[in-house]
Parts: sequence; C-alpha cells; structure tokens
Amino acid sequence: MADTAVTMEKIVNLSKRRGFVFPSSEIYGGLGSCWDYGPLGVELKRNVKAAWWRDTVTSRPDIVGLDASILMHPDVWVASGHVSNFTDPMVDCKLCKGRFRADKLEDSVCPKKPSKQPGQCDGELTEARNFNLMFKTHMGPVEDSGASVYLRPETAQGIFVNFVNVVNSARMKPPFGIAQQGKSFRNEITPGNFLFRTREFEQMELEFFVKPGEDDAWYIYWRDRRLAWYKAYGIRAERLRLRDHGGDELAHYAKGCADVEYEFPIGWQELEGIANRTDFDLKAHINQSGKDLSFFDADSKERYVPYVIEPSAGADRSTLAFLVDAYDEDGPEDDRRVVLRFHPSLAPIKVAVLPLMRKGGLPEKAQEIVEMLRPHAAVSYDQAGSIGRRYRRQDEIGTPFGITVDYETLEDDTVTLRDRDSMEQKRVAISELVDIITKAIAPPSLAAGLAP
Amino acid sequence: MADTAVTMEKIVNLSKRRGFVFPSSEIYGGLGSCWDYGPLGVELKRNVKAAWWRDTVTSRPDIVGLDASILMHPDVWVASGHVSNFTDPMVDCKLCKGRFRADKLEDSVCPKKPSKQPGQCDGELTEARNFNLMFKTHMGPVEDSGASVYLRPETAQGIFVNFVNVVNSARMKPPFGIAQQGKSFRNEITPGNFLFRTREFEQMELEFFVKPGEDDAWYIYWRDRRLAWYKAYGIRAERLRLRDHGGDELAHYAKGCADVEYEFPIGWQELEGIANRTDFDLKAHINQSGKDLSFFDADSKERYVPYVIEPSAGADRSTLAFLVDAYDEDGPEDDRRVVLRFHPSLAPIKVAVLPLMRKGGLPEKAQEIVEMLRPHAAVSYDQAGSIGRRYRRQDEIGTPFGITVDYETLEDDTVTLRDRDSMEQKRVAISELVDIITKAIAPPSLAAGLAP
Repeated sequence: MADTAVTMEKIVNLSKRRGFVFPSSEIYGGLGSCWDYGPLGVELKRNVKAAWWRDTVTSRPDIVGLDASILMHPDVWVASGHVSNFTDPMVDCKLCKGRFRADKLEDSVCPKKPSKQPGQCDGELTEARNFNLMFKTHMGPVEDSGASVYLRPETAQGIFVNFVNVVNSARMKPPFGIAQQGKSFRNEITPGNFLFRTREFEQMELEFFVKPGEDDAWYIYWRDRRLAWYKAYGIRAERLRLRDHGGDELAHYAKGCADVEYEFPIGWQELEGIANRTDFDLKAHINQSGKDLSFFDADSKERYVPYVIEPSAGADRSTLAFLVDAYDEDGPEDDRRVVLRFHPSLAPIKVAVLPLMRKGGLPEKAQEIVEMLRPHAAVSYDQAGSIGRRYRRQDEIGTPFGITVDYETLEDDTVTLRDRDSMEQKRVAISELVDIITKAIAPPSLAAGLAP
Repeated sequence: MADTAVTMEKIVNLSKRRGFVFPSSEIYGGLGSCWDYGPLGVELKRNVKAAWWRDTVTSRPDIVGLDASILMHPDVWVASGHVSNFTDPMVDCKLCKGRFRADKLEDSVCPKKPSKQPGQCDGELTEARNFNLMFKTHMGPVEDSGASVYLRPETAQGIFVNFVNVVNSARMKPPFGIAQQGKSFRNEITPGNFLFRTREFEQMELEFFVKPGEDDAWYIYWRDRRLAWYKAYGIRAERLRLRDHGGDELAHYAKGCADVEYEFPIGWQELEGIANRTDFDLKAHINQSGKDLSFFDADSKERYVPYVIEPSAGADRSTLAFLVDAYDEDGPEDDRRVVLRFHPSLAPIKVAVLPLMRKGGLPEKAQEIVEMLRPHAAVSYDQAGSIGRRYRRQDEIGTPFGITVDYETLEDDTVTLRDRDSMEQKRVAISELVDIITKAIAPPSLAAGLAP
C-alpha cells in the first residue's frame, strides 16, 4: 500500500508543480533558504494575512495597525538588546576556515572530511566568539561605521518606538493594541525545512498594552484566543497544542510565555509565541532615548509604563501549516487523489468553472458564469482534458467548488456543483450560485469576547 | 486671506498629527528618508495596494500574482545590469571627506562652508567614481565576498527569473502578465520630499508578456489604462498627465516609455513608468543562466522569447498622491475646515458613528450601530467633544460618512447621515445604512476592455 502520509517532500514538490512556492533564483541554482510564492501561494498567503488583519485589527475597536520601515535607527537595536545579545557562539576552523555554531558542533560536519565533525578532523578550532544574527548594511554614500544600519530582526520594535505617536494621534488608551505585518531578517546559521525557518520571513505581531496588574488576565486571554484562531481556520485540533515555557526557558524580560505549536512532518514546532513582555521594551527605549514613553490616564490621573502582551506569529510558517494541514490523499488504492482541504476562506481559488465539452456553446456559457462570479470569489476557468482530470487538478490546489456546464445548462440554466471534500455533486440553478458560494467562503466566526 | 493651497509641509504635519505617517525611529532623531505608516496611513496604503491587486490581478483572467523574496542570487543583478550600471558618479572631498554626486555638484553644499559648493571651498575633489546604488549585505556566518547579497533594487527581476515556473505551473500563455507588490531598496544619494523618494520603498509592478509584433498595441493599451486607473480612484484630471519619453531619455533596452505624472506641490513628478522592455530581460537571463526561458506555443508550434510591457508604480508615492490630491480647505474664512476628499473605496475609515450626547442611552444605541456596520465597513466611534468638532475631526481624516444618533433615534430608529464632501445631512432609517454605505464605498468601475 502506498504511503499516504504527508511529508515535507510531498509539500515541496506539490508547491513547485502547482505554483504555490518556487525556490528563489532557481535558474541560478537557488539562494539558501529563500523562497518565492507563485500564483497560488501568493493568494494563499494573502488570505492568511488578511484573516489575521481582519480578526486582529479591523474587527476590533481596541487595536490599530502600523507599518514601520525595515530600516530603523541603529540605537533601536542597542535599546532592545539585539546588538549585545542577539548572537550565536561560533568557532572557526583554522585549517579549512569554516565557521560553525559552537553549541551545535555535533550536528555539523567538517567541509573537507564530511565523516567527521569540526574539531575531530585535522583542523584546530578557535575559541568561541559571538556572531550577531542581524543583517548589516550601509546607508548613504559612505561605507563607514556611522552609516551602518540593520535589517530589522523583528517588527515589534517598530511598534514600541511609535507608542507615543499612536497614543497621541489615534487617541488610544490601555488596554489597546498595535498590530503590524511585515518582513524581518535573521542571518540564521542553520535555516531549513522549507518555509519553516528562513533568513527572510514575514511576521504578524501584536503588541497589546495594558495597565500593570491587568497583564496576567490579558496574557491568558491572548494565549487562548490565538490557539482558537488556528482552529477556527480549520487546523486539526490534534495537531495543535499550547506549550507553556518552563522557568528556565523564559527570556529574562518575560513574565510568562507560551507557544502555539503545530505537528509538522518534522515534529512539533512553534507557529506563534505569546509572551508577557512586561514593561521591559518601553523602559529600555525610555532609558536609551531619554524620551518619556509613559501613559497618563486623564480619568484616573495616573501615570504608568504599560505592560505588553505580545502574540507574535510567523506569516510564512502559518501559511506552511495551513498547507501541510490541508494535505490529504484519499480514495481507493487504484484511484487515489491528492486533495488540499483548505478552509474555504483561505483557499487561493474558490470555484472552478468547467465546460463539459469544448464545443456546442458550453465554453461561452461557462465564461458567462465566470464573469458573474468574479466580483464575488476568486474563480478560474478550465476546459483542458477530461472532466475527471479537471476535478483532480482542482482538488490538488484546494478549490472548494467545481461548477460543470453541460447541455442541460443551455436548456434550464442549472449546473452541477461539486464539493471538493465530499466529492458530492448536486444540480443547482445558476441564479443560486453567488449566494451559495459567498456564504460558503465567508470567514469563520471567532469566539465572542473582546476582553478577559 | 489665509493660503488654502496644499503644501508638502501641511501634508507632513497632518500626517503626523492624525496618524497617517510618522518619521521612522523618531524618538532617536529619525532615520534619513525612512517613514512609518501610522493607524490611518497603514489602512490608506492597504486600500491603494488592494485596489491595484484587484484591478491588476484578481479581476483579470490573464494576470497572476507572485511574491518573490527580497534577497536574490547575486547573478540576478549581474544579468540585469544593476551590478555594472546601477550607479551614480561620486566625488570625494580630500579635505572634509564628504562624498557628493559629481553630476549634481551645483545642488550640493560643502559641509564645512555651507555657503559654497564642494570644490569651491578649500577642499580638493577626487576624480569621479561610480557608486552602486544597491544595498549590500552578507548572508551566512562568513563575511567574505562569496556571501555578499543585495537588497533588490526592483521587484521586476523576481518575475523574470520565475517566468518558466509560472508558465509551467499556472499554464499561462502570452499575452499574459505576472504582477507583484513588495519592498525594494535603493541607496539614493539625495532622497527627500516625504514619501516621494525614499531609500526603502514599495513597488507595484506588472510584467506583461506578449508575442513580438503585438507589443506596440499592448504598450499603448497599458499606457492608457494605467492613466485611467488613477483617474478612476479620484485623482483630479488636471493634476495628471502622460509624458512620453524622448528618444534620448529612453533606456537602452526600451523601445518605448511613458510616465504617468502627478502635479505634486513640488511640481510634476513620476507616479509610474510604463515601458516596452522588449525581450531584453529574458534574453539577459538566458545568457547569464544558460537556461531556456523561451516560450513554446503548442498551438502554432512557434518558439519565441516574449516581449515585455512593464507598468511599474510606486505604492508609497501613489499613496502620497492620493493623500495630496484629497487635501482641501473650504468654508468661509472664519470657519475653515480641512477635508480629505478620498475616493470612498480608499478612505481609511468609511463611517463614524457619533452619539449626540454622552448620556440618555445614546452611546449604547450608537455602539449597536457600530457593531451592525463593522462587518461591512471600517467604522469608528467618537463621543468626545461637540458634534461640530467631531465632524471636523472626521473631515480631516477623510471619513466619507458621519452618522449621528440623537433622541429621535431612540424613538423611530432613524439617524442623521452626513456627507463629508457636501456636508449635507439627511435623515435615514437604520435599516437602510448597510445598503447605502456598502454601495457608496464600492470600488469604481474601470473602463471595459481586457485587450488593445
């Protein structure tokens, strides 16, 4: 019996073949750990990001958005601790000049003697030195250290440095949040596992500011709510878990931290971390900048530095999780199909319109239905190959609905509507299609409750 | 009489005060030419990008999307010519060590003697040398030249290197397009004019592939269509123009090029360039990579390298143009108002709900209306200050509709609906609101016609 279990290899292959994800710069041999989203992947990721933005920002009165630049003043990263602490310990081999993570030597191989690990070959290793994981570049025409800037390693700091600007311009008061989506860059020594760990990646971060003393309740609220979010968009409950960090795992600034983890084919891995960062970041920027970033409550006449609850998700690894989780193979062994069971609101294409034959007026009628549906749902048209083969093609990219136009359609304006998951087909009137499909692809309702 | 004309200074000040755009890293003194979008600005820019994506990609059967990584293989920039040619000539002053654009010396000032230009002070200038405008960084743990990578200076090349991947996976054939939105980086010597010229910026680029011989007609098509796009979203016709490049202005690879220009307060400036890039880019990558990037037409049995028509727009400068163009001051001199007359589909907030008083059940009734509208339109609630002042606050951020809830509302379920532009108020039933507002904020209809 063929193995129908999902593997990373199946996902990588399907991604390239059907246009979800391509290796970056592939015609030049690729660029380590960089990936390009193809026509279907870009829509899937856009849908994931739109779902997060809708549920985190536009559907809530207590959260506003922000979009800070990737290049920031270097002092930001002094204040945040990234210049001093965002490092991995590295050793160099004096013989082969290779550089390796000192704490992962047993996972590394000598480039000249691949059967050995560094230090066990003929080479001598240097003492461990700290290697900063931020990408550095130079701004302006002069390449001196005064012009050095970093590509941001996280979007969060763009929110903290704008805290006062947002409070003043948007008249927000705690409890309230500032949310951001955008690219970050980390010069990881060992990226890998497809989209899971890449040096260029996109984050979806929320910094939620609360009065000290109210932070424990909000921490629990966001921890539970973020887990529920992935479930609402269809991730299987048995492949999701919340894992609370033990005291020895906690960052020095964090009062509490939990990871939403997903069981990838490579094992349980973090999708998102929810942390109680206390007032660490705002206080760090107060100290570094000399500016007052406290909040004054005009009602209670109290002044305080808010605590921050941070749900920090990866847009690429979430997209990967939705892709992996959607993957299924079913049917009898002699007639297997691959199907991506995306939540309809996340599927890149919502409906495919298929004329049964390429003649007799069926293509023209099908095109009319395409244009009718286009303002309401991402729609594609396919007339190439047998109808069974066309269904399978749509199953493999996760299209929730197939509409077949046949000779009966020309007589009574009905079509066959096929459901991706059950493969059931039913006859419906063309006039019902917009209503049926817009209802089916609507976003899920999240659990009510905007506060702990 | 006060000067009611729009200036860049008015736009910068309004942007900071109301949360459209903040100076990046402002608490650290800012970072040259970098800006952060605040709560309103992020929604405005998202609406501009969504309009472009909808009109360019999802509403058309002949264009698909892509999202390539910012970091690409260095050979991409050798092939594209950026490594050799994407340069400005620079001179150094041997005395003050300043570096200046050799072709713009008359616009530069000596850092030590600001009354003089470089070379006219006591300092001696070096010969001009070429300074590459790409940001360079290092990938992986070793900082040697083999690990040098660039931040992409344009998104277009990510499309060209994926041409074959898209053709194969999405089964597209010319005429068809690949569209992309994303950040690019250029180490400009003289950035400036707010969002207009920044070192980090976002592009909206379409590469439209056609059979050689069909390129002239498609070039005219896209040139006219892109001009019409800005008009459809409300930019004043008298501040827009198409300017065809003269023969001496044309890049060596371009057969034709035209700019959509907008009359900013600083003068006429490019919003978007539409170029016939011929087969220059695909052929350059064929030569550099040794890969076959030609297209084989299975119907006509012809093989050819497509020509490319490229409409390349700036997301930030488009957003700036929509902001500047929306700006207006009207009313009698003793009662002036500032109003942003955004096209309703682009306005960050569509409707504000305002209880006339903070008592008598009016806030609760207003909140009910907010929740009713929220799934349909970006809505805000404001109960602070006089009703007149609240209207002005909404005018200043471009909210098309104000809904006032008063005691009559509690009796007959009607509200006052105020129009931003005319300031006219009319009484409407609450049950009509969703319909009135969703119709008013719908995207404009573009001119029909998917082909020349």
